[in-house]
Amino acid sequence: MAGSRDRDAAVGGDMDPEEFRREGHRVVDWLADYFAHPERFPVLAQVQPGDLVRALPSRAPEGPESFDAIFDDFTRLVVPGITHWNHPGFFAYFAISGSGPGVLAEMLAAGLNVQAMLWRTSPAATELEEVALGWLRDLMHLPPAFEGVIYDTASVAVLHALAAAREAVIADVRTKGLLGRSDVPRVRVYLSAHTHSSADKSVILLGLGKDALAHIPGDANHAMRVDLLREAIAADRRAGILPLAIIATIGTTSSTAIDPVHEIADLCEAEGIWLHVDAAYAGVMAMLPAWRHAFRGAERADTLVVNPHKWLFTPFDCSVLYCRRMDMLRQAFSLVAEYLKTTEAAPVRNLMDTGIQLGRRFRALKLWMVLRYFGASGIRQRLEAHVELARMFAGWVDSTQGWERLAPVPFSVVCFRHHPAGMDDEAVLESHNAAIMDAVNASGEAFLSHTKLDGRYVLRLAIGNIRTEERHVRRVWALLTEAAAALPSM
Amino acid sequence: MAGSRDRDAAVGGDMDPEEFRREGHRVVDWLADYFAHPERFPVLAQVQPGDLVRALPSRAPEGPESFDAIFDDFTRLVVPGITHWNHPGFFAYFAISGSGPGVLAEMLAAGLNVQAMLWRTSPAATELEEVALGWLRDLMHLPPAFEGVIYDTASVAVLHALAAAREAVIADVRTKGLLGRSDVPRVRVYLSAHTHSSADKSVILLGLGKDALAHIPGDANHAMRVDLLREAIAADRRAGILPLAIIATIGTTSSTAIDPVHEIADLCEAEGIWLHVDAAYAGVMAMLPAWRHAFRGAERADTLVVNPHKWLFTPFDCSVLYCRRMDMLRQAFSLVAEYLKTTEAAPVRNLMDTGIQLGRRFRALKLWMVLRYFGASGIRQRLEAHVELARMFAGWVDSTQGWERLAPVPFSVVCFRHHPAGMDDEAVLESHNAAIMDAVNASGEAFLSHTKLDGRYVLRLAIGNIRTEERHVRRVWALLTEAAAALPSM
Repeated sequence: MAGSRDRDAAVGGDMDPEEFRREGHRVVDWLADYFAHPERFPVLAQVQPGDLVRALPSRAPEGPESFDAIFDDFTRLVVPGITHWNHPGFFAYFAISGSGPGVLAEMLAAGLNVQAMLWRTSPAATELEEVALGWLRDLMHLPPAFEGVIYDTASVAVLHALAAAREAVIADVRTKGLLGRSDVPRVRVYLSAHTHSSADKSVILLGLGKDALAHIPGDANHAMRVDLLREAIAADRRAGILPLAIIATIGTTSSTAIDPVHEIADLCEAEGIWLHVDAAYAGVMAMLPAWRHAFRGAERADTLVVNPHKWLFTPFDCSVLYCRRMDMLRQAFSLVAEYLKTTEAAPVRNLMDTGIQLGRRFRALKLWMVLRYFGASGIRQRLEAHVELARMFAGWVDSTQGWERLAPVPFSVVCFRHHPAGMDDEAVLESHNAAIMDAVNASGEAFLSHTKLDGRYVLRLAIGNIRTEERHVRRVWALLTEAAAALPSM
Repeated sequence: MAGSRDRDAAVGGDMDPEEFRREGHRVVDWLADYFAHPERFPVLAQVQPGDLVRALPSRAPEGPESFDAIFDDFTRLVVPGITHWNHPGFFAYFAISGSGPGVLAEMLAAGLNVQAMLWRTSPAATELEEVALGWLRDLMHLPPAFEGVIYDTASVAVLHALAAAREAVIADVRTKGLLGRSDVPRVRVYLSAHTHSSADKSVILLGLGKDALAHIPGDANHAMRVDLLREAIAADRRAGILPLAIIATIGTTSSTAIDPVHEIADLCEAEGIWLHVDAAYAGVMAMLPAWRHAFRGAERADTLVVNPHKWLFTPFDCSVLYCRRMDMLRQAFSLVAEYLKTTEAAPVRNLMDTGIQLGRRFRALKLWMVLRYFGASGIRQRLEAHVELARMFAGWVDSTQGWERLAPVPFSVVCFRHHPAGMDDEAVLESHNAAIMDAVNASGEAFLSHTKLDGRYVLRLAIGNIRTEERHVRRVWALLTEAAAALPSM
């Protein structure tokens, strides 16, 4: 099909389409082999800081290079420096999955290269986002009053949620800002001691300052204590401090604890406070009837974030903010320069009006393809399997002498540590468990991360990769017990 | 290579690797055909609002669907709703290019699915960003003092630039915020009447309020008037208002005007004001010796943004912020929760410390592959060709009766309109030219957008797509003159 006109066009133009076809097939073959053998590479990159910088030239090439040479350097120099989030032994942070249909969708999105700032700059990108987010909202049993928007990350989603709350609470903030406002009292954002750090960063960015944060302590299960929340709000009100928002989390980062959203929603209703629910990781579990109770009250949130790129098999990045007061988000962010004004045959939604970012990738495509390829039942089945694997691992921890579990396992993350008899100093336990973790991570077969709960150093096993099977969980348990046995126990 | 173990793993797991290989080849073939015939589809989608929403089911499928069925819906329902940013007749906004090597890199990045928040979560992603941004910095003749970071969009880049300026100017803003600060005066951000609207949005988000914006008028060429800037700063200082930052643009959105950065940099130095340079579109032209003069003073900026996804043939999204005071950015944004703490063999850079977004895609890969595939000389050659095409078109406008040019053409954008003899009412000229634009856009062969300059409605022709050749520019001129001739001239 590529006639001489196309060849002529390629002089000074793009890569020749036939070369793209050939190299594209090569890339797909490499990826297919990689997905067939995801354990071929160590999960945590076994390189030293600076290795790649030293291996590459310090200046860009003056002349063009062949894709062959570039791809060769990719496999030879770049791949060894990759930490393989696709490895079934990835148990650190929150394990994620860029599933096959999602990767294919990303290939198409990259090829189309649409920028969906306006409806007109790609109607299908805007409307497919509406469709896919409607599907997900219904699957999660959230009410139709929730309008959705896709951002890159939950950090940006919570930033927008709090910006909308600020817009709702502080008169004229868009015009007058916060400085020199004798008419505006101090404000407070309530969150738990276990809320994700991105909320703190957002409060800083919004100009409210860390002093505006009230970190409410958690109960024994690390869920926010509503009695203390209520007291904090009352004390603030007495001191003339205005509540701006409450952030409740379903599935905290450290231990996947579940804040009592239902009670917090009652409080928000009674007090007229903006409720943001962070369900970035665990939100997808609202699709399963047996877990519905954990989400009680979420339907009353003003904003709720869920990340398909975390536990919905969608390649990174894709974070969804549901908002029942999208007017506030628009009021905060809509600002249409002349060069962005359009007129259409009917009212349309322009995605640029619901966020700080003018430019938008076509992220809905991958979510739509993933939802269709696996289907709702296929997604539920995979989530349940992950929870089962986590429970199995938790059972081993519970039943093995010298090991202890440090938090409930409501979803797919297990918090635990090795605690040999007689080793009771927290500093000693910390270095002991850090050594176990380092040994496991150095194996290249598994990758764990840590946190702290109530001052204790805790290892985390997070299940979430679509390729993780029972044998991988068995293997990491073997690695952990071997590493523990190899260390002095006192 | 895919043995029975892999097939077993696929039950309840990901798409089978052999299916990924087969469907991946199909996707690549579709893209190769699409790139070979980029004019097969109308550039501006010829659909009505709601078409796609109505064509798709309102609920997600319960069971899994074949990739075949999904891909069929993609080509049948989604593609007609795509506005084709790859079409060589795309002349709206800023024309961009997702070039072949960039798309291949995005395929690899989607497959690897790394999340580069920490060095350890993918050392190669962090280090390749350092390498590629060093290359680009040197190609643009910026000093080594500039450390770079990749964000998604220039909107987010300017947000970070202004957040860093706020951190530098307002004591304890991170802790105390802006409310109730009797110790902090009002502040001002100076920008031109033609600065991109994302700067206004950032100032709002940062809690400074639109009142903190001083839009300095432009001269006859729409470049910021430094005399008026100087006066505005002096008047503010007399009124006790503290300058927070000045934003100078090289290549404004409407007309690609060039603010006198050298003079503004002098002023910033004398006054101790943060200088942010917006070179999102035109920054790449600093690679060409003949355009170096336009960038005089940019080397003295505190922050500078350039978007490889605009005019550097890199698929969207990829925006680079160079900062010579990265300590301020880190001071503003670094916040390390326990679960993100790491220890490495040597000091490393963790990308999460330089931004609001914790999660980061592996965006450096595409920039690195694009720079190598075309080479510095190949990029310069393509940029020069685009400027030549814009000059050619400007020449036709200048030499044709009834047409007028409304701004200089320093780069690759032409601002012009049809102005028949006797038609002098601005409202009439606006609807006349809007009708011309709508007719051209309805042809499906070209897509233009508009702006306003000095109250006049202006058509914009933006060259930037890697596939645009002389014949496409000739064709849009023919379409424009035909559309003008078909309209009543009074």
